Amino acid sequence: MERILATYYIETPFAPGKAAAVLAGEQSSGTFVAVPGETEELKQRFAARVESVELLETVKEPAIPGASSKDGLYHRAIVKVSWSIENFGYNLPVLVSTLQGNLYEITQFTGLKLMDIELPASYGSFFSGPSFGITGCRELTGVYNRPLIGTIIKPSVGLSPEQTAGIVNVLSEAGIDFVKDDELLSSSGNSSFEDRLSAVMQVINRQADKTGKKVMYAFNISGDMDDMLYRYEKIIQAGGTCAMVSINSVGLSAVKKICDQGQLAIHAHRNGWGMLTRHPLLGIDFRAYQKLWRLAGVDQLHVNGIQNKFWESDDSVVNSIDACLTPFYTHKTVLPVVSSGQWGGQAFETWRRTKTTDLLYMAGGGIMAHPMGAAAGVQALQQAWQGAVEGMTLEETAKQFPAFAESVKKFGTK
Amino acid sequence: MERILATYYIETPFAPGKAAAVLAGEQSSGTFVAVPGETEELKQRFAARVESVELLETVKEPAIPGASSKDGLYHRAIVKVSWSIENFGYNLPVLVSTLQGNLYEITQFTGLKLMDIELPASYGSFFSGPSFGITGCRELTGVYNRPLIGTIIKPSVGLSPEQTAGIVNVLSEAGIDFVKDDELLSSSGNSSFEDRLSAVMQVINRQADKTGKKVMYAFNISGDMDDMLYRYEKIIQAGGTCAMVSINSVGLSAVKKICDQGQLAIHAHRNGWGMLTRHPLLGIDFRAYQKLWRLAGVDQLHVNGIQNKFWESDDSVVNSIDACLTPFYTHKTVLPVVSSGQWGGQAFETWRRTKTTDLLYMAGGGIMAHPMGAAAGVQALQQAWQGAVEGMTLEETAKQFPAFAESVKKFGTK
Repeated sequence: MERILATYYIETPFAPGKAAAVLAGEQSSGTFVAVPGETEELKQRFAARVESVELLETVKEPAIPGASSKDGLYHRAIVKVSWSIENFGYNLPVLVSTLQGNLYEITQFTGLKLMDIELPASYGSFFSGPSFGITGCRELTGVYNRPLIGTIIKPSVGLSPEQTAGIVNVLSEAGIDFVKDDELLSSSGNSSFEDRLSAVMQVINRQADKTGKKVMYAFNISGDMDDMLYRYEKIIQAGGTCAMVSINSVGLSAVKKICDQGQLAIHAHRNGWGMLTRHPLLGIDFRAYQKLWRLAGVDQLHVNGIQNKFWESDDSVVNSIDACLTPFYTHKTVLPVVSSGQWGGQAFETWRRTKTTDLLYMAGGGIMAHPMGAAAGVQALQQAWQGAVEGMTLEETAKQFPAFAESVKKFGTK
Repeated sequence: MERILATYYIETPFAPGKAAAVLAGEQSSGTFVAVPGETEELKQRFAARVESVELLETVKEPAIPGASSKDGLYHRAIVKVSWSIENFGYNLPVLVSTLQGNLYEITQFTGLKLMDIELPASYGSFFSGPSFGITGCRELTGVYNRPLIGTIIKPSVGLSPEQTAGIVNVLSEAGIDFVKDDELLSSSGNSSFEDRLSAVMQVINRQADKTGKKVMYAFNISGDMDDMLYRYEKIIQAGGTCAMVSINSVGLSAVKKICDQGQLAIHAHRNGWGMLTRHPLLGIDFRAYQKLWRLAGVDQLHVNGIQNKFWESDDSVVNSIDACLTPFYTHKTVLPVVSSGQWGGQAFETWRRTKTTDLLYMAGGGIMAHPMGAAAGVQALQQAWQGAVEGMTLEETAKQFPAFAESVKKFGTK
């Protein structure tokens, strides 16, 4: 019978192997006294197994509250635990409860992070993965051989539908590939979803009729299940190609239901992610996280950006991009969404470290606040990427391309 | 216009007021350069406001990774931030993205926990809250003036539907009020949901016909949206009264859709909760968390238990019970589910500290492994509560009631 293998980074005042055994017990049989019916045969078939324990460093302070150590020492380790898929089948929420459930309550751990999961072959056929992924998003936007260039409408909340559509008009004439709502906006006091959809799609459709290029706009449909399905249909009717969901806020079952519709590319915003991963010894690593959401079927997934304005290190961002681009069954590959304080200057380091253009590269102020206007802002980003891919330095690229040179002047001190 | 007020516990190497202003900016306008259209009028209407900053202690080590301090000091504070409900209306996922979204990414914080939220009056009428709550669950089970006594089928995974039904038969003859699936089980290799539902409800219905008392069984419907709705209907058809959902694994939108059906009491299992709260300076406190789920409409919510087997302190458990029992609009009150290593001995301390019997008091091995059998196990729990409420000590209660005395002998050294 196929098994699922989970890798945890743990810290414990006890022997790591014993703490891992507590985890395996809690997450498969789980009670503090033996009860009738708990036979050896059942245990063999359904019990979680500790597959390996790799000892790491020992420290003197616990990372998070838990049992105290008698000798003042806390041991870190990488432990691998496996479960038969008979326990949960192809039920993602129950899989999550198994991998990320009550185990975080176990007092024997003073640190616990789910680092990765290895899923069995049958998951690749039961789940069909992203309906669009990188290839589909490229087809929908007609962008090949370079990153998709995108932006977020700012201010996040407050513009009227007409103002938003006005900005989209400027951006689409400027040659942008992708625009999105902010995650803080779905329907606000002065911008109902329906009105914004209608105003924005009028601009996008008119521009598409003129040039043949349809801007992909990610409308934030996050909300109640029925509202999301209703808005999804409205986007299709209006000729849109993409819907955005805040995956942590909406949750796994509803996001999967949206992805299962299969007619729009799903832009997965991971806001709230810092809460789940920011502590090195608590929560979940992006490598495990992105697998769950790829099973659910999202097409685009946020990964932050190089030299971002947030807390995350470049190494972590590079790892996340690599995770997204790692093949997953024969599924379409999820498109990594690079954002946060990007203006084109980071294209060089992003390219140097990832050697990929399979990115949705998002810049906010970097486009709209470009000294020569939004069109030059979009051009500057394309130029930055062209320069980076052709092996030029930032300085060489700035010398060759005036629009990018202006970006460097305005944003380069950042 | 009504506003929502959020209280955060923060840590920052900067002036706390300045860090709070970054949070407010990021969570309402949010970009690193000014853009056209961001007028003063819009800011006034849609900007988040820092309402207060209360300085606490200063420490020398950051709680979680973030910007480093120039003087080596990290300042802790309680900050209150408010938003107009015009920003998100009555959209729970967008509210969550506002209160718990990208703010966890802000490098200016080396600690950030959402402690509480104050919601406006109109939320109380837009959201109808739990369909059953404490009063409804008492009516469904016919239990008044004492806690509902419940148990979890163990081993968590592995029993056949017939074995599960056999245990339910023993338990229902023993006078149990409530039984639940483990969160690790929905459909397993040898216990499909449908077969288990059918076998268990046959036992429960037969017993109800005989005695007039129908045991409430929380069937774990967690899964894909459509599967959950299908299973929900199946439970109704089979005469069941309750469905269980793992709220963190399933997610807010799908859980709300289930609660909105309004025909079954919804048992909300919070597995995964440790990940969200275990670090004192990261995530969300139960007081904020339970409000979101009460808005979604869950009827029963896990709170761990006094002297539990997990990491959580008694103080934290007491606070959680208090949070659940605090009136919320004119909504029905959510029933706190007390569990984890409970056997009756903790009834005294639980009563002393909470002075309530509005609890679903769960014991696993404490019932099934009682030396005189399950019926005595159920009796022992009722006796423990009777003794506690009547002001007796554990010892006095054990003297009066032989079944409880046996519990003390077997589990009392714990």
